[in-house]
Amino acid sequence: MGNAIFAGIDLGGTNAKVALFDDQLHQIGEKRAPSRATESADIILENLAALLTGLLKETGTDPEDLMALGIGVPGLMDVQAGISHYLANFPQWRDVPVVQWFENRLHIPVVLDNDVRMNTYGEWSEGAAKGVQNAILLTLGTGVGAGIILEGKMLYGTTDSAGELGHMSINANGRPCNCGNIGCWERYVSATGLIQTTQEAIAKAPTSVLAEWQAEGQPLTGKMVSLAYDEGDAVAHEVMNQTGEWLGVGLVSIINVFNPERIIIGGGMAAAGKRIMTPAQKYIDAHALAQPLAAAKIVPAALGDRAGMVGAAVRGRAKWAKNNAS
Amino acid sequence: MGNAIFAGIDLGGTNAKVALFDDQLHQIGEKRAPSRATESADIILENLAALLTGLLKETGTDPEDLMALGIGVPGLMDVQAGISHYLANFPQWRDVPVVQWFENRLHIPVVLDNDVRMNTYGEWSEGAAKGVQNAILLTLGTGVGAGIILEGKMLYGTTDSAGELGHMSINANGRPCNCGNIGCWERYVSATGLIQTTQEAIAKAPTSVLAEWQAEGQPLTGKMVSLAYDEGDAVAHEVMNQTGEWLGVGLVSIINVFNPERIIIGGGMAAAGKRIMTPAQKYIDAHALAQPLAAAKIVPAALGDRAGMVGAAVRGRAKWAKNNAS
Repeated sequence: MGNAIFAGIDLGGTNAKVALFDDQLHQIGEKRAPSRATESADIILENLAALLTGLLKETGTDPEDLMALGIGVPGLMDVQAGISHYLANFPQWRDVPVVQWFENRLHIPVVLDNDVRMNTYGEWSEGAAKGVQNAILLTLGTGVGAGIILEGKMLYGTTDSAGELGHMSINANGRPCNCGNIGCWERYVSATGLIQTTQEAIAKAPTSVLAEWQAEGQPLTGKMVSLAYDEGDAVAHEVMNQTGEWLGVGLVSIINVFNPERIIIGGGMAAAGKRIMTPAQKYIDAHALAQPLAAAKIVPAALGDRAGMVGAAVRGRAKWAKNNAS
Repeated sequence: MGNAIFAGIDLGGTNAKVALFDDQLHQIGEKRAPSRATESADIILENLAALLTGLLKETGTDPEDLMALGIGVPGLMDVQAGISHYLANFPQWRDVPVVQWFENRLHIPVVLDNDVRMNTYGEWSEGAAKGVQNAILLTLGTGVGAGIILEGKMLYGTTDSAGELGHMSINANGRPCNCGNIGCWERYVSATGLIQTTQEAIAKAPTSVLAEWQAEGQPLTGKMVSLAYDEGDAVAHEVMNQTGEWLGVGLVSIINVFNPERIIIGGGMAAAGKRIMTPAQKYIDAHALAQPLAAAKIVPAALGDRAGMVGAAVRGRAKWAKNNAS
């Protein structure tokens, strides 16, 4: 037998990613491919298995050395049973026994979990939350994802759905959310929220460079708002300040409620960096309770889009270690 | 040696309460007295010790049978060190080593914790959350207190200040809070919030019976709003519906974030009962995420104002059992 190798898969709506790690979580190699989300569940799973097999070959890894696999997917699932109930943008995907499928195929321990929890396990094990007992990861992307680690344990809740910090309301008379709630934090601090805020601001200030770009037919993106901000555009500054304050509103609630040691900000919106984090931190310093404020450090994510694969491998390795111990 | 007896003290801003329990947590007796909040810390502690001694005598309990003591106090503290830093309404009370004081006096294990956490331990051990692994207690009184039990453990956070659900903002442009934040949930669903809402409503509708009572010089209370509600007063109905909806707004966030199995509502405002809980539950059913909503049951507290003493005795017994085991 060679070295113990662990694989992590991150299945997203557009792309699937797989990486191999040694038992110290050093990455050996990674491979990406389209998710083929509109196909049947079997084709999607075969596609993932082929991606893994391809990576084993490319890296010259003996398949016998592969000890465990972790898989992160978005959407509703039963973590214990290893069943993914539903994936947005995967129309044929229903109640798929992902763990059983891969365990039958590979004859190694397989773990399934929510993608943002896998990201959190990754940042916790190898990234920005390493060694921290109370940490919260927020991914600000199309929506807002969150993983909550309390006293050294990931929070799952009664039916594995805990952690939806994006669906705290910060304004009961605010923007309606697809989830059925009103004023969800995600409606303000996700990329989607930023664009809505920008469009509302442009409507009142058509001289903004952002209004020009949109009139030229370019769909607005967070990156464009950052560019306009750097060019000194007043609307972009207003939008970033406002979004930063809204980010602060939710972070104050998180600090007051959880008293975390570290809050990690990841996802596409994190690229806005100080443009939103400076007003956010200012809002937090002015509004959070003193005792938990003093304990809470807000930092950017460290592993980028590798976090999910790292976390999945970490969970696979943990299941393997537990099986070997008992 | 007789039976093992455990004592629980609940030190409030107005009254101090002590109760004795057998090792099955059956209550043997209880005793109440004014807290003497404006006196020195030594006088307050001597007062508590005398209350306990008096109760031992009254119940014919051999002081040798007293195995442990738990004490719940409001305000900031260091739970591990057993030091109460600050108590609102206790002007001379600063950094008081409560545990050391009582251990020196009684030579038994003593535990200190936050009053609302002691309430939560009480309801968890003997009341409305018995046997539940994910439960949240809310006490709606002058403010809003909360105790959060996740996967069978009380949440303390990094510096023991976790659980301030009353200081989640439900409206970043809403009512200012004494804590420095804006739109804290507590500003809307505490008794204080209910009175503010009532006064705002009366100002617009001076024909309400509540306006009459206030004009007669009676300071408004939550009980008066309930009475007016029962008499069919339109303003009281509007106030209770609005307060119930605001209660729902925060409960939706709690359900989405924690995915709890049970939420327990206690405190003075709980006396409003269905008048606020019916609109709250309606709001929750319409706005919470389906999966955590299906798991969450909202129930009234079971132990009333005994919960704090029960919980304190539970914690004392736990420390005693741990000492004996090691």
